[in-house]
Amino acid sequence: MYDLIIIGGGPAGITAASIALNKRLETLIIAERWGGQTTYRMELEDSEEQDVVSEEALLDAFRHQLDYLEFARCFDTVTKVTPEEQRFVVETADGDRFESRALIIATGAKPQRLNVPGETRLAGRGLSYSATAHSGLFLGKDVAVVGNGRRAQWAAASVARKAHYVYLLACEPLVPTPLVGKLRGMSNVEVIEGVKVTDVLGEKFVQAIAVTMPDGSAREIPVKGVFVKLARTPNSGLFRDWIDCDDVGHILVNVDCATSWPGAFAAGDVTLVSEQVLVHIGEGAKAAMAAYHYLLML
Amino acid sequence: MYDLIIIGGGPAGITAASIALNKRLETLIIAERWGGQTTYRMELEDSEEQDVVSEEALLDAFRHQLDYLEFARCFDTVTKVTPEEQRFVVETADGDRFESRALIIATGAKPQRLNVPGETRLAGRGLSYSATAHSGLFLGKDVAVVGNGRRAQWAAASVARKAHYVYLLACEPLVPTPLVGKLRGMSNVEVIEGVKVTDVLGEKFVQAIAVTMPDGSAREIPVKGVFVKLARTPNSGLFRDWIDCDDVGHILVNVDCATSWPGAFAAGDVTLVSEQVLVHIGEGAKAAMAAYHYLLML
Repeated sequence: MYDLIIIGGGPAGITAASIALNKRLETLIIAERWGGQTTYRMELEDSEEQDVVSEEALLDAFRHQLDYLEFARCFDTVTKVTPEEQRFVVETADGDRFESRALIIATGAKPQRLNVPGETRLAGRGLSYSATAHSGLFLGKDVAVVGNGRRAQWAAASVARKAHYVYLLACEPLVPTPLVGKLRGMSNVEVIEGVKVTDVLGEKFVQAIAVTMPDGSAREIPVKGVFVKLARTPNSGLFRDWIDCDDVGHILVNVDCATSWPGAFAAGDVTLVSEQVLVHIGEGAKAAMAAYHYLLML
Repeated sequence: MYDLIIIGGGPAGITAASIALNKRLETLIIAERWGGQTTYRMELEDSEEQDVVSEEALLDAFRHQLDYLEFARCFDTVTKVTPEEQRFVVETADGDRFESRALIIATGAKPQRLNVPGETRLAGRGLSYSATAHSGLFLGKDVAVVGNGRRAQWAAASVARKAHYVYLLACEPLVPTPLVGKLRGMSNVEVIEGVKVTDVLGEKFVQAIAVTMPDGSAREIPVKGVFVKLARTPNSGLFRDWIDCDDVGHILVNVDCATSWPGAFAAGDVTLVSEQVLVHIGEGAKAAMAAYHYLLML
């Protein structure tokens, strides 16, 4: 019986594991691999080399600690989690079965890709999945943001502060909200609804985005950057039957990362929280501290 | 007019400043000095050298960035903050007056000291203010925890997992709670109420704590460690008239670090949050992202 099982190997999960081990909790972290959705570096035709992101150094230190503490980690896919009285039973694809008294869910979210020919080739070469990390690189340039929901809208508003012109390409009409109203009023933002992205073009770097317009015509819009901000699916399928989630599946937590189930905590992209790696590090640490306090009271 | 003023130079404040500057917000951080309540290293008679804490390296990188960006920082004491319509007016002891559209309060909390002769001399040599950082160092040893409130109680419960024996020295009777009940039931915890600490003894390292017992008698309790966990006062005096706080003065925030006043955010020890530096780093980052989103909508 472990004190704590952590599911997920992104920034929130590995930080939680590091704190829990430091607290001398009997800890197991189960992940398919290390990483999560941390962003990669972006190369652009005319950009200087970016500094190594310092929070990555911190996460590297945590990963190294976990690599060293073999007994505390397991690379496997969790297939079932059963809550029982004051314990959790966690089963994996390899047929293992682990038990713990507390649980941290840091399973992240599954991104939705464009699935067009140029996407993979130009990722990191003008095409990005993170406005938080990369919007500042497109100063004075024309950029497309692809998506319908709030994440796409915030990205467009954020990119528009620096970019010359922003096309927000939404496959469906946008639901009117204050944020959408704001976007429609911005002089360097063009909202195009009912549009379908067919490709991202460019030899070495993004040069244009190819779309089918609402009237069925094909168009190539010249842009230097493409932000893909399609809806993501929180990886909460194993928990939705017994933990409160929102409509989309984000696990609901209080300010201490506690879920609706006693002893179960959640952190990172599986919850509704800023997509910022330091925020996820902090949430992982907070979930570990909350689990530690919970365990002290058992 | 700044976009954002951040008050406080601890982990939450400097992280918020770093993120805000990275977002190209016109940012000013006002602090009396860098630091906040980050813990120092603990030396013990028989302990090995501790590794440098890696989150400190991250904070150092942020501090260096701010030292370089002179225009973004101001070492001064904030004396008055006036909320006006969609802006905040911040006045300082040196007579400066700054305005911003958003505000992050990261003013921390004022610790209460024992104020006994041995305290300063033995701080970092067996005497600690942070059970989070140092409780693991006292494995198998006898330790005293001084304080009445929840912070002292959690510290005692936490230290008792590793220490041989824990004296919880409370100046007043403890209010019965589940946590207090738990402590009273632990075989290696002794709760002594109505006790007054008169000194911390030891030549090079803590050897004992001197107290006046409830019956008026003097006693020296041999311990290798003393955790001082007296009530702290959140530095929220400038904000209590216009921002919702709890009874003690902690600023109340939601999961996005928003306070009750639009455009004002809070992070770190001035709020009710785990005393863990990574948590404060994450809260500072979250407050900066929330302020950034708020500003995008103005």
